[in-house]
Amino acid sequence: MATIEFWFDFASTYSYPAAARIERLACEKGISVIWRSFLLGPIFQQQGWNDSPFNIYPTQGCYMWRDLERICADLGIPLRQPSVFPRNSVLAARVACCFASEPWLPEFVRHVFSANFADDQDISNRAVIEGCLDRVGVPGAEKIEQALMPASKNLLRAQTEHAAAISVFGAPTFIVDHEIFWGNDRLEQAMAWCKSPGLNPPA
Amino acid sequence: MATIEFWFDFASTYSYPAAARIERLACEKGISVIWRSFLLGPIFQQQGWNDSPFNIYPTQGCYMWRDLERICADLGIPLRQPSVFPRNSVLAARVACCFASEPWLPEFVRHVFSANFADDQDISNRAVIEGCLDRVGVPGAEKIEQALMPASKNLLRAQTEHAAAISVFGAPTFIVDHEIFWGNDRLEQAMAWCKSPGLNPPA
Repeated sequence: MATIEFWFDFASTYSYPAAARIERLACEKGISVIWRSFLLGPIFQQQGWNDSPFNIYPTQGCYMWRDLERICADLGIPLRQPSVFPRNSVLAARVACCFASEPWLPEFVRHVFSANFADDQDISNRAVIEGCLDRVGVPGAEKIEQALMPASKNLLRAQTEHAAAISVFGAPTFIVDHEIFWGNDRLEQAMAWCKSPGLNPPA
Repeated sequence: MATIEFWFDFASTYSYPAAARIERLACEKGISVIWRSFLLGPIFQQQGWNDSPFNIYPTQGCYMWRDLERICADLGIPLRQPSVFPRNSVLAARVACCFASEPWLPEFVRHVFSANFADDQDISNRAVIEGCLDRVGVPGAEKIEQALMPASKNLLRAQTEHAAAISVFGAPTFIVDHEIFWGNDRLEQAMAWCKSPGLNPPA
């Protein structure tokens, strides 16, 4: 079965619409999604940024919020600009990394994105993440305990280091057979690549 | 008639595919294109960049060239990575600004982009621009003389200042009824906006 890797950060604005639509699209095309949670923060720091580039460059930031508003309206998903941006996504990312292959994971991911970008909730708050877990029918408190164990922390750190090593520099990023596609607006192209790569591999 | 403003810089990589396809798309949809040449350099300088961000951040740069390769292959237009990037686009921009409403302008613009991104020619070289003008059937040397007059220089400066004033921060940018769309991948969305705006104006 063809597979697409979906690299996302819960604090990343354009990851929200990507997470909302990737599973349905992949299902229609018979493609399997590998959910790869990681942290953009350390990758931005390597570029000398201690904040989201959308905050560092406010003209781009202002444009991004309007662009996201149009995208969410087209998709029919709600958007409320979070009162804190970017939100700390470490706890949610640990959970998503720890349980990446569970059948409930995609729905959990969508709940966390909605909490951040539709309901303006603090996703660094344990109760919020616990609520997202409970809503998908798993024991939230117990799963969080597991995600807070050192092995789980190391898993997220390793996954973020891996992202940097393979030149992931933003989110969402899609990877199909080593080919990298960056941005929610490249999802369709990445899926088409699964079926028939359009070019030779890069030199 | 509905109109779309197309803001472009001849040094901008993603402006190349946009320039190659905008006229045909607009014609199909009965939309009139307003060609707005400007310089990204001064706008980047306001953000503290003295080079293209694709050079400052090489991981993004490397991705951009691969992405552009895929886009050009899809469009069936040639691409050769210029041996100098970004190229100085001031002369070409002055000509494009000076003769923005001439019927030969779109074809001239495409020739200049091809010179830069398909033929690896130095578009700051007067002979190259003269050749692009000659090829569209106008006297190149004469047009360049006009474009080098102070009034023409001021026109480009004013247009670049106007771009900054209306929050244009990259190229290509499309503007439809004050709504801003950034990036070659937003061209279809901008054209759809001409016909039926999808949201209320931004607050």
